[in-house]
Amino acid sequence: MLDSLFRPRAVAVIGASTKELSIGNRVIKNLIDFGFTGAIYPINPNAEEIRGLKAYKSIFDCPDGIDVVHMVIPAKFVPQAVEDCGKKGVKHIIINSGGFAETGPEGAAIQNDFLERARRYGIRVFGPNCQGVINTDPAIRAYCNFTFTRPEPGFISIVALSGGVAEVIHQAFAQMGVGTRIYASNGNAVDVTIPEILEYLGGDEGTRVIVTYVEGLRDPANFLRVATQVAARKPILAMKAGRTKEGARAAASHTGGLAKEDIATDLIFDKAGILSFRDEGHLIQAAVAFASQPIPRGNRIGIITNTGGPAVIATDVLVAAGCTLPPLSAPTHERLKAALYPEASVGNPVDVLATGTAQHYRACLDAMMEDEAFDGVFVNFVTPFFVDNEAIAREIVAVNRAHQKPIVCNLMTDPRQWAEVVRILREGEVPCFPLPGEAARAMAALVRYRALRDRAPRTIRSFPNLKGEKAGRILEKARKAGRSRLTAEEAYRLLEAYRIPVARWKAVGTPEEAAEAAAAIGFPVALKADASELLHKTDRGGVALDLGSASAVKRAAQEMKKAFDYPDLRFLVQKFLPGGLELILGARAEEGLGHAVVFGLGGVLVEVLKDVVFALTPVSTAEAREMLDAIQAKALLDGVRGRPGVDREALVEMIEKLSRLLVEHPEIQEMDVNPVLAFPERAVAVDVRIAIR
Amino acid sequence: MLDSLFRPRAVAVIGASTKELSIGNRVIKNLIDFGFTGAIYPINPNAEEIRGLKAYKSIFDCPDGIDVVHMVIPAKFVPQAVEDCGKKGVKHIIINSGGFAETGPEGAAIQNDFLERARRYGIRVFGPNCQGVINTDPAIRAYCNFTFTRPEPGFISIVALSGGVAEVIHQAFAQMGVGTRIYASNGNAVDVTIPEILEYLGGDEGTRVIVTYVEGLRDPANFLRVATQVAARKPILAMKAGRTKEGARAAASHTGGLAKEDIATDLIFDKAGILSFRDEGHLIQAAVAFASQPIPRGNRIGIITNTGGPAVIATDVLVAAGCTLPPLSAPTHERLKAALYPEASVGNPVDVLATGTAQHYRACLDAMMEDEAFDGVFVNFVTPFFVDNEAIAREIVAVNRAHQKPIVCNLMTDPRQWAEVVRILREGEVPCFPLPGEAARAMAALVRYRALRDRAPRTIRSFPNLKGEKAGRILEKARKAGRSRLTAEEAYRLLEAYRIPVARWKAVGTPEEAAEAAAAIGFPVALKADASELLHKTDRGGVALDLGSASAVKRAAQEMKKAFDYPDLRFLVQKFLPGGLELILGARAEEGLGHAVVFGLGGVLVEVLKDVVFALTPVSTAEAREMLDAIQAKALLDGVRGRPGVDREALVEMIEKLSRLLVEHPEIQEMDVNPVLAFPERAVAVDVRIAIR
Repeated sequence: MLDSLFRPRAVAVIGASTKELSIGNRVIKNLIDFGFTGAIYPINPNAEEIRGLKAYKSIFDCPDGIDVVHMVIPAKFVPQAVEDCGKKGVKHIIINSGGFAETGPEGAAIQNDFLERARRYGIRVFGPNCQGVINTDPAIRAYCNFTFTRPEPGFISIVALSGGVAEVIHQAFAQMGVGTRIYASNGNAVDVTIPEILEYLGGDEGTRVIVTYVEGLRDPANFLRVATQVAARKPILAMKAGRTKEGARAAASHTGGLAKEDIATDLIFDKAGILSFRDEGHLIQAAVAFASQPIPRGNRIGIITNTGGPAVIATDVLVAAGCTLPPLSAPTHERLKAALYPEASVGNPVDVLATGTAQHYRACLDAMMEDEAFDGVFVNFVTPFFVDNEAIAREIVAVNRAHQKPIVCNLMTDPRQWAEVVRILREGEVPCFPLPGEAARAMAALVRYRALRDRAPRTIRSFPNLKGEKAGRILEKARKAGRSRLTAEEAYRLLEAYRIPVARWKAVGTPEEAAEAAAAIGFPVALKADASELLHKTDRGGVALDLGSASAVKRAAQEMKKAFDYPDLRFLVQKFLPGGLELILGARAEEGLGHAVVFGLGGVLVEVLKDVVFALTPVSTAEAREMLDAIQAKALLDGVRGRPGVDREALVEMIEKLSRLLVEHPEIQEMDVNPVLAFPERAVAVDVRIAIR
Repeated sequence: MLDSLFRPRAVAVIGASTKELSIGNRVIKNLIDFGFTGAIYPINPNAEEIRGLKAYKSIFDCPDGIDVVHMVIPAKFVPQAVEDCGKKGVKHIIINSGGFAETGPEGAAIQNDFLERARRYGIRVFGPNCQGVINTDPAIRAYCNFTFTRPEPGFISIVALSGGVAEVIHQAFAQMGVGTRIYASNGNAVDVTIPEILEYLGGDEGTRVIVTYVEGLRDPANFLRVATQVAARKPILAMKAGRTKEGARAAASHTGGLAKEDIATDLIFDKAGILSFRDEGHLIQAAVAFASQPIPRGNRIGIITNTGGPAVIATDVLVAAGCTLPPLSAPTHERLKAALYPEASVGNPVDVLATGTAQHYRACLDAMMEDEAFDGVFVNFVTPFFVDNEAIAREIVAVNRAHQKPIVCNLMTDPRQWAEVVRILREGEVPCFPLPGEAARAMAALVRYRALRDRAPRTIRSFPNLKGEKAGRILEKARKAGRSRLTAEEAYRLLEAYRIPVARWKAVGTPEEAAEAAAAIGFPVALKADASELLHKTDRGGVALDLGSASAVKRAAQEMKKAFDYPDLRFLVQKFLPGGLELILGARAEEGLGHAVVFGLGGVLVEVLKDVVFALTPVSTAEAREMLDAIQAKALLDGVRGRPGVDREALVEMIEKLSRLLVEHPEIQEMDVNPVLAFPERAVAVDVRIAIR
């Protein structure tokens, strides 16, 4: 569908201008300078020619077969121009102009107007208020974009609403001498969406890696669906900004409210299998490595250096990022001992010394490529004046060409003096970074991607005998009664309908019944006041724990009766279970996206340490297990210092069943199972609050 | 003392060579090319001239007044050459050659030999196995160094043993068009030390900021002492590598065992007032900002941008680093509303739009400089082709020249197309970074330095009536008995000698005495078996808690007596105190440096969450308070969810007294007060273990 947008045969520019410093001139210049392989039709009623090309009075004067029209005219003229394009049979319009929804209701009305016309004619609109697209494919060379940084052909595609950040990324590649494949920045994105572009890039053979930047997602469910499919085919590297309250506010001010300080975007990235970044520099450096390097089979890295300190920094970064530096095998050690200077430090890192030659580097590279103990090779390479650095560069390139294992290079040089070294490594597609940490993080990103690809499949488990309809009736009843919260009794029944274990309980109406119920359940018990309007019952004296006798229960219930004057006041008697590990499990509805499930350490520590992790519904078995492993206090689950571990699988199952409950009942707005008590042989919900919408 | 090393009037090169690719030729080339203002004497018995300079047969043939001699000769010839230099009256020798202690015992012997001779003549040796020094002072221009990246005059001085990392940092500055003042990399550093160089740089007027990289410290106490003095005068920015076990091993392999995986270096940095970094890129970027910008008065930053997304990224980074983005005051808002395009987003960030002009930038800059609500101004500046970017650059420079508040700029451009913009900003000393995150972190470093300068003074409090001699006698007795551990009784007495509160206790010999002691202390009590050889008593049944009666105490003591067959077995009866917050306090001797004190969350969480912080002795009141604030679970100290806070000042005092104990008794190897129980009105030590050396 977007093929003719990214691979146009002819491009017309409505609003083509003779003024050099105008966008309507620049897009033509960019198309010409970059060597666009199709036809270019400047449209201007008053000009004969623009930048040496024949200008047309109107779109109707142009030849047929126009795939893309740039519109660089005031907003108010856009709807009629779109109409004209429709009549002419244009396929895509890139509206570079602003003045639409981003400026207020008047602009929004114009936007709706042109959009309605475009739809009528089946025209796809890119933008408005956008930079446009670039495709460096040598067969196309479409620079349909007014940005000023000239692209070079490459394998990285960039897609983002924000032209500013897309351009920063693009500039960084240009500075590093790394090419771009497709560049798409669609501004207001009223028609062609980011997911559609992702899908296109997924199918574009020339795109090896996709880089994206977001501040928020318009249709998160659709993004998730598409990104999951695309990420299964090729790497998507992404960064979300607007993480802080202030950053989200700044984002909202320039996108008109799209961004919010959320966790959902990160969860979507993770669920889709997108490699996410928190620093645009790290994202850029990783993309450069992905553009040319194979994905390593594992995390075992060998380091070759001709200088000490930078290898130490690289080692720190690699290890902190989860890589290992295996020792050299005995044969490899022997081999290198024989090949290098006697003073060389033969180990991992192997230090060939500043005087190390091209043959020395080659020997190390070959040895590590052949040694099964290594999944990738990291090279520190400083260019002393007294060795043949070009020869070293050529050996690195020669080994890199074989694409056996990824190579990342920390090239420490003065590029003015050693331009040829830089050129050799660039042309040889060796990813090079001036700082050891940058290079190491790029390698670590490849390793991280391997782990992402290898993670357990996201299979959703089904459980027998879950009573979804019964749960529905409970929720429906509360909703019909106009309540936004379930009573404790309803909430427990809801959990039980999904076979989530709850500490044995009984709901009763009077202190006497409470005492009876306690005797039936068995002491000790907890007593909880329950009414739909009763919030924060713990703080308000609505909970009595560890009651050891019927009389204690009755007395406690009587006191609560005095304290709380709710018409629907009832009592919940529940088995009191000492000694379990206090955990929490909860969920919150995410606009347009199901629920975010939260799991973590409970009790007072929830608030103090915030040791919780999140996942989006539906939560697979693998994700539930990963949640358990992701909390800081994971060791408490496994048992520590004589304290036994807990039944992890019971917790996993509880998370999965909760997820199923949420998926089947999207009307649940928020829920908190707090605490869940975990024991060596089971886990039970002890208190639960549920809000509906 | 080092003045003539860094400001030599004449430099001789022993081992001067006619071969272009040799170090003995390169140092001469570097001196000549860089325009060294002093005399250069190549010394070579077989050459008439080298690089156009008259060559001398020997040092004795040279004119007198030689401040620096480079030695680029095999190690075995060095001692005699040093002797000759001594006779000649040379002040400093930079030994570039290797082949000394780093290669083994034979080299070490040569090293000792030349060092002994140098000392005899009062010659200071720089290196060996080092790059050398550079001083770009226009009056000197001493490039006494064989590295290949040509320096430009600037205000940042670099000092590091590791030539590799020093050079990487230097290259990064060169790439950014930022100058260097003094560069010193002293390799094996057998004589002139890093602290000496720091001291010199502290007094060098041309050095505005000092950058250093370390993998370990040879004489940490001396480093601390000197760095504290220098850091009080000008900013020192530092990075320590070899943080991971693997990184430390890599460092050891190239420095011969200097580095270790330690926390002490970080603690030294903190105590000295050094701004520390974990990423060499962040260090470099910060240094660039420090080189030209004033230190902000606070953390309140205003952002001016002409593009949306990059300002969002900058906002995230600034806020995450502790900066605030105050809103515009009403007058500033009015002023900018009037000055900018109507569609401009007037707030913080203020978005002047891509079409924003130099006048718009200037209006924002002036407004934020004049508005007392801002301590610094952050500029995002992309260079669209349709505005006068040079004019914008000139306005930024004009405001920057006034040095009212720091300015950091995220310049997003293609430097080939906009070379003049880059030049204007560079010459105008505006720190510019291509990525928004880089620029924001540089600004954040300035803010962090302000906080470091403003931190509470490190005043060591003295406490009356501490019985140091009594403590000494206890330790002496244990030492004389050949014990490496104190008994519990001794350890409690030691704490009490320093007036550290201990839960009321009594040590007795028999179960009967234990019962009596318990009655005297008051129930409930804890009973602990105590013997010098008894370790892990809790795990082995040597502790009984919450005993409520004399008979329970007696019974428990009898059981312990049966279980433990130690000749010196005694019983410790102690008041049992339920309900306190469990904390730990401990210390470990740090080689050559006093002790590292640890404070944190106690109980099972110590091991699971490792929520602990460290400080070096002597710990001041301010540092002790900062320790309390630095733990993750700080909120537990302040009280949370109805749980009361604890007596913070009691804990602070306990830390300070412990520090005093350690300072006065360096023979303490390790101690653990675990737990310390903290209550709203006091804190008491409950268990303590002490190892001595």
